[in-house]
Amino acid sequence: MVRFYCGAGFSDSLHTQTGRDQCCGRKFYGTMESWQCCQHDVTQSPFYVKEVLTLNQVIATLQSRCSLRRYKDMALSDEHKDIILKSMMRAPSAGNMMLYSVIAIERQETKDILSRTCDNQPFIAKAPWVLVFAADIQRWFDYYQLCDVPQYCADHNLTYHQNPNLGDLFIAASDTLIAAQNAAIAAESLGIGSCYIGDIMENYETHRELLGLPDYAFPLAMLCLGYYPDDQKLEPPLLRPRFDQQCIVFNEKYHRLDASELQAMFAEREKIVQPGNNPFQAKNFGQLMYARKTGAPFFQEMHRSLQAAMQRWLGNKLSSLE
Amino acid sequence: MVRFYCGAGFSDSLHTQTGRDQCCGRKFYGTMESWQCCQHDVTQSPFYVKEVLTLNQVIATLQSRCSLRRYKDMALSDEHKDIILKSMMRAPSAGNMMLYSVIAIERQETKDILSRTCDNQPFIAKAPWVLVFAADIQRWFDYYQLCDVPQYCADHNLTYHQNPNLGDLFIAASDTLIAAQNAAIAAESLGIGSCYIGDIMENYETHRELLGLPDYAFPLAMLCLGYYPDDQKLEPPLLRPRFDQQCIVFNEKYHRLDASELQAMFAEREKIVQPGNNPFQAKNFGQLMYARKTGAPFFQEMHRSLQAAMQRWLGNKLSSLE
Repeated sequence: MVRFYCGAGFSDSLHTQTGRDQCCGRKFYGTMESWQCCQHDVTQSPFYVKEVLTLNQVIATLQSRCSLRRYKDMALSDEHKDIILKSMMRAPSAGNMMLYSVIAIERQETKDILSRTCDNQPFIAKAPWVLVFAADIQRWFDYYQLCDVPQYCADHNLTYHQNPNLGDLFIAASDTLIAAQNAAIAAESLGIGSCYIGDIMENYETHRELLGLPDYAFPLAMLCLGYYPDDQKLEPPLLRPRFDQQCIVFNEKYHRLDASELQAMFAEREKIVQPGNNPFQAKNFGQLMYARKTGAPFFQEMHRSLQAAMQRWLGNKLSSLE
Repeated sequence: MVRFYCGAGFSDSLHTQTGRDQCCGRKFYGTMESWQCCQHDVTQSPFYVKEVLTLNQVIATLQSRCSLRRYKDMALSDEHKDIILKSMMRAPSAGNMMLYSVIAIERQETKDILSRTCDNQPFIAKAPWVLVFAADIQRWFDYYQLCDVPQYCADHNLTYHQNPNLGDLFIAASDTLIAAQNAAIAAESLGIGSCYIGDIMENYETHRELLGLPDYAFPLAMLCLGYYPDDQKLEPPLLRPRFDQQCIVFNEKYHRLDASELQAMFAEREKIVQPGNNPFQAKNFGQLMYARKTGAPFFQEMHRSLQAAMQRWLGNKLSSLE
């Protein structure tokens, strides 16, 4: 069974009114045919947008996914884990080098530690399956040694770089995150929700020890995965509003937003902030987010941790970069 | 119409033998029903693996996608572009901050330049639609100024960081690449192929000027997109073999491969290298890949370019990192 997104956005009462109570919500398990049961009324929906009519299951999955932080208390089936990993392995990879490793974690003790080291998020410990995605060029540098590449370079007047550089690092990071998203999307299509944890980039030394990582592998992303809880399967997804597309996507050239454009971009989010309604005494959304995110201690820890990880990757040459 | 992957992997002749010639290849346009036309014989397929029976359209799309470098000479429809961008915008984003920007390029002059600056790949100039994905925290730092965050910090005994740091950078990179992959997958499901170009990370100064990027936005990934050429729609996808899963995915802890495991990992790829059959005079696959990738001039340029971009992002503080 595959989860589809109705897309029409009718409320339950509207569904009842139209006699379509077999389509009981915006997100449900069903077949492509039952998903289409709303099509005839879709233009009447308050959520109607043109592309609803052209959705396929892939688009529906991409557009309806949101982070899941509460999971059914049930291990993932071996079959589902295998499908997710196989889908991940087919992610595009620069030069087909696969510059990433994945640590799949089910041991409770490890999840307990990660729930503390990743900015104290208890739900991590309750996720049935946790995948840590590490940018990894260790295998290749080990293989280069095995293949006598240093001697080959000496014989052919090439420079042998003892350590990876920033190019390797960002290409590996790209491979890693692209693969992670394939895993997240594959899981979602199987009724398995997920949540990214960027905080795996904090506490590098602890995670390095915990996961046994070598110098040229460091964790960039983590996914917590689990089946949707039974009581949530029929719920509409709580999709958090995104910024307007015109603030994110530009034609031909970047457009730097001016003050009035920034105010328009953040207008909806500003509504949630009232002086005195937040523990940071922020007077506006910019101050709130700076206090909660950009200026928060965990971001400084992430910076420190990434510095330490990059030192390893670059062979202690970070400080000598121009 | 949506492209499905038959998955059974029967050759044309086998299909003919079984009388299923309506299913003429491994990749074809059709409905979920016609995709299922192979199910009854799937266990007889030389490519049979268990999960073929549980594939849905999402899994099929993820597992059958490969890079497309030759496109139908036809602009993408506005509707398709809109679906791809909307699917991208729903990608998970840390704190819902959307730390990325996308420059959508159709102007031939710009594509011509990119085809040269991105390691001389002429097919880039022929892609109908090119998306450049930039990690971007410029909007947020501009908004922080607009929101009097420096004064707020002074009043509340917080440090105001004038520039983003490595934490912001890698969180932004994560947002960026995850969003890019949503775009690639959405496109694929609509019959629109794509190819990532990591070389957009080279020549930072040129790309910064060309795309009008501010200090806190820099390009990490590029996707070339276009419809599949008519003569390729019915072709099986040329899926390049990946490394064995056991070399990439580890349970509970990282496993550093030893010499014999590395030799097994690379055994298939070693077969393509014969002394004298390559312009690099490499005697094995490790030497070949070092010469072609890790030790190649474009990787050194990428390193240099990323250093310059990181200098901007960090406010010229790269050299002072410990």
